Amino acid sequence: MTKVAIVFHSGYGHTAAIAEAVQRGAASVAGTEVSLIKAAEASEHWEELDSADAIIFGSPTYMGSTAAEMKKFMEATSGRWMHQQWADKLAAGFSVSASWSGDKLNTLFDLAVFAAQHSMIWAGLNILPGFNHSKGSIDDLNRTGHAIGVGIQANADQGAEGIKESDFKTAEALGARIAALAARFNKP
Amino acid sequence: MTKVAIVFHSGYGHTAAIAEAVQRGAASVAGTEVSLIKAAEASEHWEELDSADAIIFGSPTYMGSTAAEMKKFMEATSGRWMHQQWADKLAAGFSVSASWSGDKLNTLFDLAVFAAQHSMIWAGLNILPGFNHSKGSIDDLNRTGHAIGVGIQANADQGAEGIKESDFKTAEALGARIAALAARFNKP
Amino acid sequence: MTKVAIVFHSGYGHTAAIAEAVQRGAASVAGTEVSLIKAAEASEHWEELDSADAIIFGSPTYMGSTAAEMKKFMEATSGRWMHQQWADKLAAGFSVSASWSGDKLNTLFDLAVFAAQHSMIWAGLNILPGFNHSKGSIDDLNRTGHAIGVGIQANADQGAEGIKESDFKTAEALGARIAALAARFNKP
Amino acid sequence: MTKVAIVFHSGYGHTAAIAEAVQRGAASVAGTEVSLIKAAEASEHWEELDSADAIIFGSPTYMGSTAAEMKKFMEATSGRWMHQQWADKLAAGFSVSASWSGDKLNTLFDLAVFAAQHSMIWAGLNILPGFNHSKGSIDDLNRTGHAIGVGIQANADQGAEGIKESDFKTAEALGARIAALAARFNKP
Repeated sequence: MTKVAIVFHSGYGHTAAIAEAVQRGAASVAGTEVSLIKAAEASEHWEELDSADAIIFGSPTYMGSTAAEMKKFMEATSGRWMHQQWADKLAAGFSVSASWSGDKLNTLFDLAVFAAQHSMIWAGLNILPGFNHSKGSIDDLNRTGHAIGVGIQANADQGAEGIKESDFKTAEALGARIAALAARFNKP
Repeated sequence: MTKVAIVFHSGYGHTAAIAEAVQRGAASVAGTEVSLIKAAEASEHWEELDSADAIIFGSPTYMGSTAAEMKKFMEATSGRWMHQQWADKLAAGFSVSASWSGDKLNTLFDLAVFAAQHSMIWAGLNILPGFNHSKGSIDDLNRTGHAIGVGIQANADQGAEGIKESDFKTAEALGARIAALAARFNKP
Repeated sequence: MTKVAIVFHSGYGHTAAIAEAVQRGAASVAGTEVSLIKAAEASEHWEELDSADAIIFGSPTYMGSTAAEMKKFMEATSGRWMHQQWADKLAAGFSVSASWSGDKLNTLFDLAVFAAQHSMIWAGLNILPGFNHSKGSIDDLNRTGHAIGVGIQANADQGAEGIKESDFKTAEALGARIAALAARFNKP
Repeated sequence: MTKVAIVFHSGYGHTAAIAEAVQRGAASVAGTEVSLIKAAEASEHWEELDSADAIIFGSPTYMGSTAAEMKKFMEATSGRWMHQQWADKLAAGFSVSASWSGDKLNTLFDLAVFAAQHSMIWAGLNILPGFNHSKGSIDDLNRTGHAIGVGIQANADQGAEGIKESDFKTAEALGARIAALAARFNKP
């Protein structure tokens, strides 16, 4: 059994909807057990996090970087960092904002640096950028063109219902990829 | 007279077309003299660069960061860095790639860090992100949603003719902004 | 009169001590009025922030990025961002952590991207890196060698009393630089 | 047999000396074959790169980012990127500059983003930062305190003979870590 945990913060529901898509993707890989954990409730879920083979971190990009609420969770892991308890777990990240870039790459850097401090091993997305040629469309997978993690564009004037199907599928692909890599990395 | 220099590299013409738009924008501000300099030819233009009030740096994003040819120019400034000859000049940046993000923010970080080593003062764009709500469109200014500089999306299967009018206007706005700020900063 | 505001969070007193050094530096420039504001109390100081010519942001680097408490303040500025109320103010940043790098550059990127979203104009330090040759010492200014802002190394097992004199002087230099630049930029 | 390749550029010999230390570390893991490849000569070594289980990238930090010569190599991989030939290989990075920070983190970001575009899986160092408390010393491993890769400080007025033993050991540790992770990840 491969254990994948997803820790996320969502201010208005967009990131929660994407986190669920990541969960669906991970759960689609046979032999995977997935935990979906809100950052604000992580203190009740340390066991799931400590025993996970992979942890996927998700945050909106607010004012150009990781949401404060997510950052609070990250700071609460400092004891685990000190003892390097999460070393060699797989890690990945996703971020959501209204703009196509919206500085989501900066949030993904925050998450990747955090994971590196924990000596976790970072995997990004393995889908080439979409919507980058004259025949491309908003329905392409990875339409925002991020690599180090998933970057989702969600309209500012809509809730999760405004998120494109392509974005849900991109998030599912990340979940499936991380579950498969974690299984491979932990083969007995 | 305010002097603005633009130094750029362009592999396939997209970044050159955007550099010209930045030039048009800067030239539209009364009392501004603009130099457009190819990175590969910068060694013949040190005087224009040394006397500029502002320098705007432009590069495609290739494999996630600044183009090697642009980087060569940046390394050729190390003597000027050592003597801090460019200190307190204004600086700005733009990057072009096929994808919406395409990791252009990382290239803009390369350029901003470079300018900071020179003790230059960095100005980004002052246009809120476009195309980020349900009524938004590809014709919005700053449609990729970058802040620290201009990020342009140019289709991989088209030349400069495929660049959107909104992107040219966004680049012009950067040029005009930097020329105006340089004038203000150097008011006698 | 040039108005400079410093907004910071400090968990254990190190960043507060550095913020005071930045304040001393700014106040040393004739005609400068300086406000020192704790991030957690910023909601009582919007007027000082809104009327400032320059705002200097300071945060510890916790787990590789900006402290959550500082990030809460940054998110509380989103209304001002929406209306671009802080456009064209000068901005700068400093970060403190126990390690020499300690990923402080990533925190400075968080702060610079934040300022860029506000269309603020970013100035870094103008002191070449110290302690980088065989005669260098821990007493050199800018001994950690950051450019885009000030990066301070403060021992993990000491309070503010463990901070090196060189670091206080580096922080003072940033304050003085920003006050002088703000005066120049706002010359009547 | 696990295959590890190291691709690096070195302007003055410091990065070459560190690359050799990374090589020693990787070779110390039983069952590992290591190739040490100069970026400028990579075009003669595509087979070793294509067949490697892990590739470790090394570059000086010049003017705040990856050296142009290294960047040229990175751009030469764009065909492999297009076909995602390096997907799921392990990747890691190291950077060398005269200053303690010297913006090496920005170079490591360049390398990590590059690897992510190739869908490679990124591992950093697993050594807590040294020299960050009152009893710390310049002889501590990971004395510059980087996490996402190895950051080496080499005096500007000395050649490779000025590099500290602690830095060689830190580089060896990275090589050994990546070789061991690659073996684990590719267990039959």
